[in-house]
Amino acid sequence: MKAAFQGELGAFSQDAIRQLLGSKAQPVPYPQFDEVFDALAHGDVNVAVAPIENTLHGSVHKNYDLMLKHDFIITAETNVRIVHNLIAPPGTRFSQIRKVYSHEVALNQCLEFFRRHKSVENVPFYDTAGSVKMVMRDRPPGAAAIASELAAKIYGGEILRREIEDDRRNYTRFFLLERKGAKPRKPQGSDRKLWKTSLVFSTRNVPGALFRALSALALRDLNLTKLESRPLRGRPWEYMFYLDLIGRQDDAVVRNALGHLGEVADFLRVLGTYRAA
Amino acid sequence: MKAAFQGELGAFSQDAIRQLLGSKAQPVPYPQFDEVFDALAHGDVNVAVAPIENTLHGSVHKNYDLMLKHDFIITAETNVRIVHNLIAPPGTRFSQIRKVYSHEVALNQCLEFFRRHKSVENVPFYDTAGSVKMVMRDRPPGAAAIASELAAKIYGGEILRREIEDDRRNYTRFFLLERKGAKPRKPQGSDRKLWKTSLVFSTRNVPGALFRALSALALRDLNLTKLESRPLRGRPWEYMFYLDLIGRQDDAVVRNALGHLGEVADFLRVLGTYRAA
Repeated sequence: MKAAFQGELGAFSQDAIRQLLGSKAQPVPYPQFDEVFDALAHGDVNVAVAPIENTLHGSVHKNYDLMLKHDFIITAETNVRIVHNLIAPPGTRFSQIRKVYSHEVALNQCLEFFRRHKSVENVPFYDTAGSVKMVMRDRPPGAAAIASELAAKIYGGEILRREIEDDRRNYTRFFLLERKGAKPRKPQGSDRKLWKTSLVFSTRNVPGALFRALSALALRDLNLTKLESRPLRGRPWEYMFYLDLIGRQDDAVVRNALGHLGEVADFLRVLGTYRAA
Repeated sequence: MKAAFQGELGAFSQDAIRQLLGSKAQPVPYPQFDEVFDALAHGDVNVAVAPIENTLHGSVHKNYDLMLKHDFIITAETNVRIVHNLIAPPGTRFSQIRKVYSHEVALNQCLEFFRRHKSVENVPFYDTAGSVKMVMRDRPPGAAAIASELAAKIYGGEILRREIEDDRRNYTRFFLLERKGAKPRKPQGSDRKLWKTSLVFSTRNVPGALFRALSALALRDLNLTKLESRPLRGRPWEYMFYLDLIGRQDDAVVRNALGHLGEVADFLRVLGTYRAA
């Protein structure tokens, strides 16, 4: 089982792959999200894993765009807590550290650490796991990296400080994507009773259009876990909506609601139905 | 008139300041968003300018959090088109460029440029405008930066390639924030007839709670331009909503709708009423 993901080995997406598929799946890294989706389309991999939203940074529009471009389905979801660790070659003492490499976003999530340690400079790098790889390979004097525990393990780094992120409520939600016809999968620890269905739709921007669209769900007592508007550039006053609801696509009530929503929406695409993480 | 913003002089926020306040306002840079808001709270500046969403990257949750923490009001909005330029010291030939410095996000928005020019390496830096400042000061051999035209002008750099971004539909929306009691301002080129009101509210997660909340607006034929749910970490199944509607806060119909929304929401805060950009 080959699973495509964006980034270097040791990226948080690899934690997502473990949570979704167990340790037997083989993670296959690609530099860009487009390449991850292409790999699944061409059959180079069996599944793809893509981050879809983060509690601090919001939705990853890029991956919604790629889901709409391709014809895959979501077969599972999982949430990965983003824990940042200070990682250096084994034997390094903390007092020797002068430069800390990591992805800009990770560095910005550890501001309190850098405020407390003024002698330590932060240096943006293209990737969190990639910064561990570089520090272990090139051994720049006084260098450390910020990345996941998994990255430390993969590249043989030692964790000098654990959980140095400012905010512990930092989670990224990932989708498992497969080619059409695939069955939903059960990740470890998921609540088997609760299901979600994810969809994207658009309405014409007439007053109450969204309200009418949502009435298709509300009048059937369906509950939402996500609703987000996204402006369509070049088409002023028109919007796409990302929506997640609680329920299985093949439940009669959900099927009816989607039929009703299809009548009032300009465009509707169901992205998948899967067990809630 | 002092206007606080996050980043270095020449950042896209400074373009927003010009669009919002004209060229007489004095931009005052701060390294972090928290410091921008603190500067306004302490009266060190007259106004603050904050990015609130980007067409490719979505909402800036951090700045919504800071708006809720502080008691400011939005007095204007503007959209800045994010145009990336390749900038080097005057006299540099394009064929000499080997390394291009910029913020990670900007580098990732110019992938086609790097695909076409394989001999050019991209190097993440902490800031777009900051990368121009560094290249002009330190003159590393074969170095260029990616940033705004304004950054080139401020630091005396020459633009070697214009508009090298992959996607022209890259806009960032900015809010002008002021202390309570301030009046809405009219940015250059704004449509004076159309107003927006921005609010944040939460509902208990019972089926149909959001639908009931939205009915307060839909039943009065009010139109939305943004609606986005954000999960509240540590409170499963509870959400905040960011909502923008067309209308002035002191219009009778908007006032009634907000009163009605206040009855059905757990929490409601109006962030401001201002001319649509």
